[in-house]
Amino acid sequence: MNHPVPKGFRLAGVHCGVKSDPTKEDLTLITTDSDAVAAGVYTQNVVHAASVKQNRAKTPFDRFRVVIVNSGNANACTGQRGEQDARELTRLAAESVGAAEDQALGMSTGIIGEFLPMDALATGITAAKARLAADKAAFESAVRGITTTDKFVKVASRCLDIDGQAIQVTAMAKGAGMIGPNMATMLCVVMTDATLDAPTAQRVLSNAVNESFNCMSVEGHTSTSDTVLLLASGAAGVPLLAAADEPQLQDAVTAVCVELARMIPTDGEGASHLITIDVQGCATREDAHQIAKTVADSPLVKTGIAGADPNWGRIISAAGYSGVQFDADKLTLSINGTLVYENSMPVAFDAATVSASIRDNHETNLQFSLGEGESSIRFWTSDLTVDYVRFNSEYTT
Amino acid sequence: MNHPVPKGFRLAGVHCGVKSDPTKEDLTLITTDSDAVAAGVYTQNVVHAASVKQNRAKTPFDRFRVVIVNSGNANACTGQRGEQDARELTRLAAESVGAAEDQALGMSTGIIGEFLPMDALATGITAAKARLAADKAAFESAVRGITTTDKFVKVASRCLDIDGQAIQVTAMAKGAGMIGPNMATMLCVVMTDATLDAPTAQRVLSNAVNESFNCMSVEGHTSTSDTVLLLASGAAGVPLLAAADEPQLQDAVTAVCVELARMIPTDGEGASHLITIDVQGCATREDAHQIAKTVADSPLVKTGIAGADPNWGRIISAAGYSGVQFDADKLTLSINGTLVYENSMPVAFDAATVSASIRDNHETNLQFSLGEGESSIRFWTSDLTVDYVRFNSEYTT
Repeated sequence: MNHPVPKGFRLAGVHCGVKSDPTKEDLTLITTDSDAVAAGVYTQNVVHAASVKQNRAKTPFDRFRVVIVNSGNANACTGQRGEQDARELTRLAAESVGAAEDQALGMSTGIIGEFLPMDALATGITAAKARLAADKAAFESAVRGITTTDKFVKVASRCLDIDGQAIQVTAMAKGAGMIGPNMATMLCVVMTDATLDAPTAQRVLSNAVNESFNCMSVEGHTSTSDTVLLLASGAAGVPLLAAADEPQLQDAVTAVCVELARMIPTDGEGASHLITIDVQGCATREDAHQIAKTVADSPLVKTGIAGADPNWGRIISAAGYSGVQFDADKLTLSINGTLVYENSMPVAFDAATVSASIRDNHETNLQFSLGEGESSIRFWTSDLTVDYVRFNSEYTT
Repeated sequence: MNHPVPKGFRLAGVHCGVKSDPTKEDLTLITTDSDAVAAGVYTQNVVHAASVKQNRAKTPFDRFRVVIVNSGNANACTGQRGEQDARELTRLAAESVGAAEDQALGMSTGIIGEFLPMDALATGITAAKARLAADKAAFESAVRGITTTDKFVKVASRCLDIDGQAIQVTAMAKGAGMIGPNMATMLCVVMTDATLDAPTAQRVLSNAVNESFNCMSVEGHTSTSDTVLLLASGAAGVPLLAAADEPQLQDAVTAVCVELARMIPTDGEGASHLITIDVQGCATREDAHQIAKTVADSPLVKTGIAGADPNWGRIISAAGYSGVQFDADKLTLSINGTLVYENSMPVAFDAATVSASIRDNHETNLQFSLGEGESSIRFWTSDLTVDYVRFNSEYTT
């Protein structure tokens, strides 16, 4: 992979002992050389990890210096001691780079209901601090340090030219559904060397998340720890982003988030298909989102795709029970570009051809048109296979 | 089974050729000897079968004479011709018993997107009319005539004594989740010989459905045809039900609906557990329903139970993302009577014992207490097994 680290950032990932495998990084530090802007978007789950609560109280702000991520233990459902541990972790991370505790953010992902091994993490912070760098090896170790059950690492980047000045946007994410006792989580850190104020960073990140991570599900089970951060170092040496240039940066941040969001259901437990759901012609974007998410979370739709079955009845009826009111007579559905349903009736189509197009491709496209308005959405999910159920039911505590 | 047919009803189920297997009944007639009261509750899916639309326009009313049910073909997603066929079906059924078309209701369940075999059904109506009876054999043939993929028939009854007068409530249902190309459906007919006015019948039925069929899901995929009818013949010869006696009838109707509702996830495709979810201490019943349904539809919770895994983290976090706001610190969870989570922390418990209690019993109980109010709900679902996915993905059109 070739994803430059934006200017002003140094990173490192080390193994400190949270994961049992000593070859696997389980602690990542991402630092900025001076005060930077940080924005965040977090899980809506009312049961959430201590780190989510603490980050939410800090962002957006312009005094960011360091984020510590540990993988292997989510520090969720750990009560007051968990909150103390989360605070101690950010205090140690801040101290290691000569910053104040309120300049540090934290993220934890992994098993829930167990206390963090604080001694190991303290030693790990010291080790990671010593290895902070901006080179490819440092970046890759940091990326591995945030993963848990991921089968592949998830990184994306864009290089921008704004008024003749180069801006880098580089992001990493982790997430692959959930397995065993782990409450797997979606984490993402977007780094840029653009110069932003805190409200702009928050606006750009929120917009990007709305088009990407909020349009993606593996099994609809929202984790306790989902966190997306945007860090802006300002180290490219360019002036504060002008309002006129914001769309360009927005496009780049959205693009990396979409690229990463698509990778998560691709890596979904046992998944054999990435399903892209386009819902068009809705009265509002919320309606389109509601329909897409309902279709994405239907076990009957997901098992149908796993079996390469162009079962339009399951797909149409899932849209129908989403809670959105629409005129069923105007609904159309295409599967991989073939119209299969129109005017409240199935359209004659070659089921064998459509089935083969599902079976022979990793990606399946479902396209709805509602005829109710101009709003649309694109949503991603994975299919539901025997392997998913096996992974998630054969573990016993 | 010993479930008396209430007075004033005659029934029959016959094979007419909708199903390919000639030993399987696929058409049922349920008639009353004179005008009766009928109330209905229907699917909320905006994509619904023609029969649902037509029944909804008629009920509640007091001129009911006959309901025709066919199984094997849902007559859903069949456009204008489907609507004409549904009207013709009720017209033929009404004619066979000497009634007007607006005195007949209809239900269809089975594959979607195909037109009804009207000639076969017309012949079947004549055959069924000739066999109408109130004996056990007639009742059993009628029950079989409404089933599709059900592994067992679903019937329940109660006998009431109101002011020294005997009232019979007997009900039949079908439903087992969904499989293959079929959009399996939940249908239920509750018969009573009590004397009710139409508004009372509708109120009693709606209340019963709220406590039973609306608190049950197999995979959260609402069918296009779900229908529950309450038919009151008044043939017991008792006076119009007094308001003071309504609670007694309500209890009986609710009880048969709950008994039938529990049978459906028990019969869920590939299901190995019936999961009973009790959510207590909520601010409103709607909150309790929302939490219970979210937990019931979580693939991670369902696969966990299939694997006999007392994975409280999945269960707690599913409650957390239901959309209901609550204080996570006050939440408690018990699995099969063992407290596993309290004060934002796991409670020390013997995981092997709880796991065995799941593995060794058909029924698993999850009990939440929220500490937010006095409202509660009981909800039923099935677990999610490898067999479910296999059934639902291995069929290819």
